[in-house]
Amino acid sequence: MNQNELKKLVGEKSVEFVEDNMILGLGTGTTVRYMVDALGKRVQEEGLHITGVTTSERTAQQAKSLGIPLKSVDEVDHIDLTIDGADEISSDFQGIKGGGAALLFEKIVAINSDKVMWIVDESKLSPKLGSFPLPVEVIPYGSKKIFERFAEKDLNPKFRRDPVTKELVRTDSNNYVIDLYLHEIDEPHSLAEYLINQVGVVEQGLFLDMVDTVIVGRENGPEVIPVNR
Amino acid sequence: MNQNELKKLVGEKSVEFVEDNMILGLGTGTTVRYMVDALGKRVQEEGLHITGVTTSERTAQQAKSLGIPLKSVDEVDHIDLTIDGADEISSDFQGIKGGGAALLFEKIVAINSDKVMWIVDESKLSPKLGSFPLPVEVIPYGSKKIFERFAEKDLNPKFRRDPVTKELVRTDSNNYVIDLYLHEIDEPHSLAEYLINQVGVVEQGLFLDMVDTVIVGRENGPEVIPVNR
Repeated sequence: MNQNELKKLVGEKSVEFVEDNMILGLGTGTTVRYMVDALGKRVQEEGLHITGVTTSERTAQQAKSLGIPLKSVDEVDHIDLTIDGADEISSDFQGIKGGGAALLFEKIVAINSDKVMWIVDESKLSPKLGSFPLPVEVIPYGSKKIFERFAEKDLNPKFRRDPVTKELVRTDSNNYVIDLYLHEIDEPHSLAEYLINQVGVVEQGLFLDMVDTVIVGRENGPEVIPVNR
Repeated sequence: MNQNELKKLVGEKSVEFVEDNMILGLGTGTTVRYMVDALGKRVQEEGLHITGVTTSERTAQQAKSLGIPLKSVDEVDHIDLTIDGADEISSDFQGIKGGGAALLFEKIVAINSDKVMWIVDESKLSPKLGSFPLPVEVIPYGSKKIFERFAEKDLNPKFRRDPVTKELVRTDSNNYVIDLYLHEIDEPHSLAEYLINQVGVVEQGLFLDMVDTVIVGRENGPEVIPVNR
């Protein structure tokens, strides 16, 4: 199976956990795309009643086109389950997210959810975090100064640019993204603590102690892993 | 003397500390307004060469109209001195800022400055912080959830609204402001730590261990207080 087939299968598998009348956080990314497609199918074919809470404009448009009713995180009193992708998951189930520049809204929805599920193909697993560059969302004003501070600390920062236009990428909150090329993160909690305390950092892509279930796309079918935390 | 006269005198006093060729952070607020007026006068009358780094659109416009050359914080390699107001200063020289909704850019400029000076009339001094409501700048998406969390923690939150239009106030970064009515803050460092770690909080108004000099407008003239830290 190729990567897209693995993604499609985990997306479909995750939707089996959705129950009638759930309020459901919908993540962002290519795997989530397959999940939302499968969810739309259940809504249309089974008449499943759910309310979606989206984390990006992209997912919102897709969900709307499939007839999934949407609310903002501020319009619901709770979220039962959030299903999202991840860019990297370590063997102790910590994650890096933000490759799609939606990490801020993804984190806002995740921390307001009773349960969080990540769906990934197996290429996203690694023993330790860091092979995926760590995204940091920063306020544009002063961002060069933050960049310089990261560089001095050997965090290998790089401003994220659009691959085509070469313009600096803007998030849904109109901020910049600085990616840290760290290769290996020894102490994710203390790195997260350092980053969030920098003035001008809005959020960072380490999602720690946050996931309850991981579904991994394997060659022989999706593997559902419950996480104890 | 009334409050405005006190503010005018400290504004003028602070400008005596400005030297030729300085790169100068310019704060925001009513006292800063007098300081920028006095600075413009020195630029025009003495031919003082300075570069201003502003913290808000308001101050930028005033400085430009007075012929003070401006750069962004990202265009200068350092800032020699930042002169700013404060909404409250405790007896151990910790501060609350953000009554003017410019706390984020004010903090970005302050932490990139070699020296920081606060100019206030004496009504801003109190033994302990907290009589001034503590402003917290938050991402609009999820802000109701943050508000609820603050309320549960008895932080007495209130969304800041325009007194005339009653609309929610937007900062220069297009975020909301939640003011915390705390009356007395016993442990500002741990409160700051708690607030900045909340997902969706962009910045908070406690300016701790940050000021080098305070000038206070007293009935018998401005008092210059050097701060050891």
